[in-house]
Amino acid sequence: MEIDIPEVKAEVEAAFARYEAALVGNDVETLEALFHDDPRTIRFGGGENLYGMDAIRAFRRGRSPVGLARDLAQTVITTYGRDFAVASTLFYRDNAPGKVGRQQQTWVRQPDGWRVVGAHVSVIDEPTA
Amino acid sequence: MEIDIPEVKAEVEAAFARYEAALVGNDVETLEALFHDDPRTIRFGGGENLYGMDAIRAFRRGRSPVGLARDLAQTVITTYGRDFAVASTLFYRDNAPGKVGRQQQTWVRQPDGWRVVGAHVSVIDEPTA
Repeated sequence: MEIDIPEVKAEVEAAFARYEAALVGNDVETLEALFHDDPRTIRFGGGENLYGMDAIRAFRRGRSPVGLARDLAQTVITTYGRDFAVASTLFYRDNAPGKVGRQQQTWVRQPDGWRVVGAHVSVIDEPTA
Repeated sequence: MEIDIPEVKAEVEAAFARYEAALVGNDVETLEALFHDDPRTIRFGGGENLYGMDAIRAFRRGRSPVGLARDLAQTVITTYGRDFAVASTLFYRDNAPGKVGRQQQTWVRQPDGWRVVGAHVSVIDEPTA
């Protein structure tokens, strides 16, 4: 299986950038559109475990739009073949000094574009090592 | 893309079960063998961010083998086509009351079998909702 085919990687990078802009802008419609609408789509968030798109939607729509700005670091997007990718990144927020966020998403190409089928976000103390 | 083809799902379930047994038994050799040996394999752990198989190996080999036993809950394995899968699960440990762990892995079929290419583990307070 070919890893990081350039044109495939460019597609996922574009989808990832679109997701990030929607996240910090609290563009709920775009955030929802970029997740695969399926009961098997799962998102483990900073403080919640969301099984299925209905749970993910309910969370997004009830979320406070305050304090979403963040800086990304060590973002790595890797594609496997033409239809599958993993996007991993660290993130930092000014309102959470000493903490590092981690976000990992699995993207799958669907007929209407790249969609997240699994996501996990967590925040920990910045490792000292 | 066909989701959850039964024989593909059975393969990933077997790989997941093998991984879980190795984890609670601290069978480091099997744990390493089930991760794709590549600098692009990324594991965000409970307290560490491991970029690349070298970092993952160093962490595994230095890990305390104490207190690894855990109970899984709400495990969902979903396959996409014949070569990709996402495995999500919650877990609980007796030594961490009131906490819930979340583990999400992306599995890719390699020539020598199913391998984890991305993993994220975190522990949060059990949500009250």
